[in-house]
Amino acid sequence: MTISADSLHNLGRLQGQFAAQRDWDQFHNPKNLVMALAAETGELIEHFQWLTPNEAARLPHGIREEVALECADVLLYLLRLCDRLDIDLAAAARRKLALNAKKYPVAKARGRMTKYDKL
Amino acid sequence: MTISADSLHNLGRLQGQFAAQRDWDQFHNPKNLVMALAAETGELIEHFQWLTPNEAARLPHGIREEVALECADVLLYLLRLCDRLDIDLAAAARRKLALNAKKYPVAKARGRMTKYDKL
Amino acid sequence: MTISADSLHNLGRLQGQFAAQRDWDQFHNPKNLVMALAAETGELIEHFQWLTPNEAARLPHGIREEVALECADVLLYLLRLCDRLDIDLAAAARRKLALNAKKYPVAKARGRMTKYDKL
Amino acid sequence: MTISADSLHNLGRLQGQFAAQRDWDQFHNPKNLVMALAAETGELIEHFQWLTPNEAARLPHGIREEVALECADVLLYLLRLCDRLDIDLAAAARRKLALNAKKYPVAKARGRMTKYDKL
Repeated sequence: MTISADSLHNLGRLQGQFAAQRDWDQFHNPKNLVMALAAETGELIEHFQWLTPNEAARLPHGIREEVALECADVLLYLLRLCDRLDIDLAAAARRKLALNAKKYPVAKARGRMTKYDKL
Repeated sequence: MTISADSLHNLGRLQGQFAAQRDWDQFHNPKNLVMALAAETGELIEHFQWLTPNEAARLPHGIREEVALECADVLLYLLRLCDRLDIDLAAAARRKLALNAKKYPVAKARGRMTKYDKL
Repeated sequence: MTISADSLHNLGRLQGQFAAQRDWDQFHNPKNLVMALAAETGELIEHFQWLTPNEAARLPHGIREEVALECADVLLYLLRLCDRLDIDLAAAARRKLALNAKKYPVAKARGRMTKYDKL
Repeated sequence: MTISADSLHNLGRLQGQFAAQRDWDQFHNPKNLVMALAAETGELIEHFQWLTPNEAARLPHGIREEVALECADVLLYLLRLCDRLDIDLAAAARRKLALNAKKYPVAKARGRMTKYDKL
């Protein structure tokens, strides 16, 4: 089987090796990892907080790279969390997409961001 | 080229189709998506906030599935955000792993969570 | 009427003057302020993410002061947000305490963190 | 000494009594409380994520009350956190306002949201 370069499993494995080499598994328990994920999300938000929606959609090149690396941090902690909880993230994403398709049928949800329980 | 089932690009494409079918691109600007990502992170945290580290590492089966779906939400909004900002998330994750390897050399970082600028 | 030194109204007024002097009201709209609040919460979390619950309860003096200033940031943006939304935060807190007393009756909630809808 | 109705100390004391009556101090350690604070911030964000800045500034009455109660939750957990860490939140807010006045001098910061280290 070929594995594509952007395989979640592959990225998670690299991140797991990184932690193992540094003996960080002792810190990487799920409670701590959820907090680390939230802290990285906070750093991502900081880049956007004072921008208008238009400015946020046209980031200067240097800022976009900083944002890309914050997005990477979020992904890497998310993968680590799923690894420690024995969750297959890609499979969960597919389950969630299927659930969302039921919760937000096209006919009802078209052009509206109303939450499913109020649709 | 074969694409593995857990390809980030592939998941991002599915999520993009889901939004397009519902005419949601008008809401999915980067500023809004960062907020949605943060709100999903908050829901993930809520599952863990009152648990001891030990309890958090041994979630009951039903809760673990709820957590898996929250993790999926975080991933799906992260992919949407990267899509709208034209960021290649997998490539960014690899760049970040390489940067982290420099910031946290094994010899210095082993067994310690000290931030790189204080190592 | 005497106003105590820790009056929320008073702190909110000081923060409002600070923003007005810098012509920052143009940035301090509710959407932006909610994001700023979330970013500060992220900085607060960062201090705690790798600590055990015991370590988190006994912060070294210097870290405790950093945490105190992060808590201050959260409060100041919260006050600014309430100011811009014309919300009386102290009155809302009293309403919420009264609601919580109904949602979590002592007899049912004693010693348990179960969410009210599952009590 | 008269205590005003919106005294932080007073609200914190009420919240502390609420927890003590339910024997919740065992759950209210700083690490958990920081997570609870972050989860409430996430619920606050959820109200604003799909709104334009203009919509966010003119919330319908019912939504505004929901937002007020989320703001109350953030404040109540923040007070609980400061209580458990022995932090005087009002004093910290005054220290932070003084620090901000130095970091953001009016002449330099007027009309700009540039971070102090890049001013």
